[in-house]
Amino acid sequence: MKVAVMGCGSWGTAFANVVADAGVAEVEMWGRRAGVVDAIRQRAENPDYFPGIELNPKLTATTEAAKALHGADFVVIAVPSQSLRENLAAWREHIPADAVIVSLMKGIELGTSRRMSEVIAEVLELPAAQIAVVTGPNLAREIAQREPATAVVACPHEPTTVRLQKVCNAAYFRPYTTTDLIGAELGGAVKNVIALAVGVAIGMGFGDNAKASLITRGLAETVRLAVSLGADEHTLAGLAGMGDLVATCTSSLSRNRTFGEKLGSGMSVEEAVAATRQTAEGVKSSESILALGRANGVDMPITEAVVGMMHHDLSPEEALLAFMSRSTKPERYGV
Amino acid sequence: MKVAVMGCGSWGTAFANVVADAGVAEVEMWGRRAGVVDAIRQRAENPDYFPGIELNPKLTATTEAAKALHGADFVVIAVPSQSLRENLAAWREHIPADAVIVSLMKGIELGTSRRMSEVIAEVLELPAAQIAVVTGPNLAREIAQREPATAVVACPHEPTTVRLQKVCNAAYFRPYTTTDLIGAELGGAVKNVIALAVGVAIGMGFGDNAKASLITRGLAETVRLAVSLGADEHTLAGLAGMGDLVATCTSSLSRNRTFGEKLGSGMSVEEAVAATRQTAEGVKSSESILALGRANGVDMPITEAVVGMMHHDLSPEEALLAFMSRSTKPERYGV
Repeated sequence: MKVAVMGCGSWGTAFANVVADAGVAEVEMWGRRAGVVDAIRQRAENPDYFPGIELNPKLTATTEAAKALHGADFVVIAVPSQSLRENLAAWREHIPADAVIVSLMKGIELGTSRRMSEVIAEVLELPAAQIAVVTGPNLAREIAQREPATAVVACPHEPTTVRLQKVCNAAYFRPYTTTDLIGAELGGAVKNVIALAVGVAIGMGFGDNAKASLITRGLAETVRLAVSLGADEHTLAGLAGMGDLVATCTSSLSRNRTFGEKLGSGMSVEEAVAATRQTAEGVKSSESILALGRANGVDMPITEAVVGMMHHDLSPEEALLAFMSRSTKPERYGV
Repeated sequence: MKVAVMGCGSWGTAFANVVADAGVAEVEMWGRRAGVVDAIRQRAENPDYFPGIELNPKLTATTEAAKALHGADFVVIAVPSQSLRENLAAWREHIPADAVIVSLMKGIELGTSRRMSEVIAEVLELPAAQIAVVTGPNLAREIAQREPATAVVACPHEPTTVRLQKVCNAAYFRPYTTTDLIGAELGGAVKNVIALAVGVAIGMGFGDNAKASLITRGLAETVRLAVSLGADEHTLAGLAGMGDLVATCTSSLSRNRTFGEKLGSGMSVEEAVAATRQTAEGVKSSESILALGRANGVDMPITEAVVGMMHHDLSPEEALLAFMSRSTKPERYGV
């Protein structure tokens, strides 16, 4: 069995290492930059993301997408969400017809508001049984360090989830299965937006009670959106929703939370981008997610506040104080 | 309107201060120890729990329970869970017949496995409309410092929740209402047990992914127990369940988490009790909660591990590694 992992970023690398450690399949990674690819192949290290961490020596890597894709039973995709469509177009002719495509991406396409699995289905014209998602409370650095973690493998076709589960079941990485792909994918995407809001609150000096309230109300709006799109609310109560959200919002390793913290402590969006040398995923996806909510009549006050802060110069003070002073009401109002 | 707050511990004091700040009712506290009572009355300070924090100067306090209870519309109880029954027996003749009794306690009675509201109903022979609960992500120190927080006010009789909500609606404390008292009460009780487990994991050096997984699976077993006892699962997905659990498990202010950390880093239960100068609530309640689960046929693997560690010399290594290496399965197995 062969697994191609497309992308040598932090999560692509950590997940490729999990598959190699699981020992069921051989793994070939693809990356754009020769330096990283050579380091992985020659000395089992990704110096850009995990300097000093010893990856599985059986990992191979290449800069030629066609070579990585050749003979792959699973094609795991870990490229930036907004570049998925163009990457797929370039790879399309090299992807084996019966391969299962596995998305590790946690974004929503700008302009179309499509989930990553929808973009894959559209560009590759594949049936649902050949498109899966891996998600959950998976901070990449901890997984690269082989610290214990759980995850969720999702595909509407159950036999696909069981096959994929076997491929990535390492001693420290425990994947559960679900057929609710929509719920799994939305949990991963919206959590980045909520993590930005939590980061802002932390940056402003709010305490653990307020942080826990924001996380809880953030999951509530995630559930409302996901259910309106056909997801099962229990998926969001599990590892792909609550688990991923809690890990992201409470860890100092989260890029979205860190980005939010900088805003909360007074930086502008431009200054935060400069300081972190990247734009956090949630900054981009927040607009697509809000659009998805609006198109489906779903109230998403936290996402709305994040879009305001990231794209329309709303100050953190205005956004969060407005949120705290909404009128008192029954907790399940609007559900 | 008058509110009696029975107990000058950390949460009793912080909540009394919220009610005083809300400004709708006068507040009289009762405490056993003259020193604390005098400090609250004379200089608006609780030197035992919140030295240096200025409480509302309108707070009054007494060591005479009859005086505090006289004319009270609401009797808020914040004594140790396991002493509730004997306290109620002593107070019973002084409690006004139409007063609403409000529990701030988050335990389950040893021996009977009764919730605090059940003990109140039994000893005072009151109808459900006169028994309420306040719970949620409410670390007492933050609330005493007037940092923003949300909470849940629960009573099966909705008008009672609305009356109580008004009494404790301060600028920094935002109470939501629910009629699901069982769900609210169980969320608060089980979270102490899960926080012990999370503390143990932190003490052992586990990372944020594992912590988030434990929190998520911990809420799943809380939901299973609560639903089997008649609660609405949505209550547990809200502030009284997820919110309180996340605040407790991620804050260094939590006594249960701190207690667990000491165990995880190698102390015995006796050493941890000596080091923290108290037994955390979850240590005592874990046995009653496991008994409740068993009586209702509910699988509670984390609670079981906590009982093993706290009461039967199970080592943290045995408990947590057993948990991580359970067989792979669909995530909703057993739900």
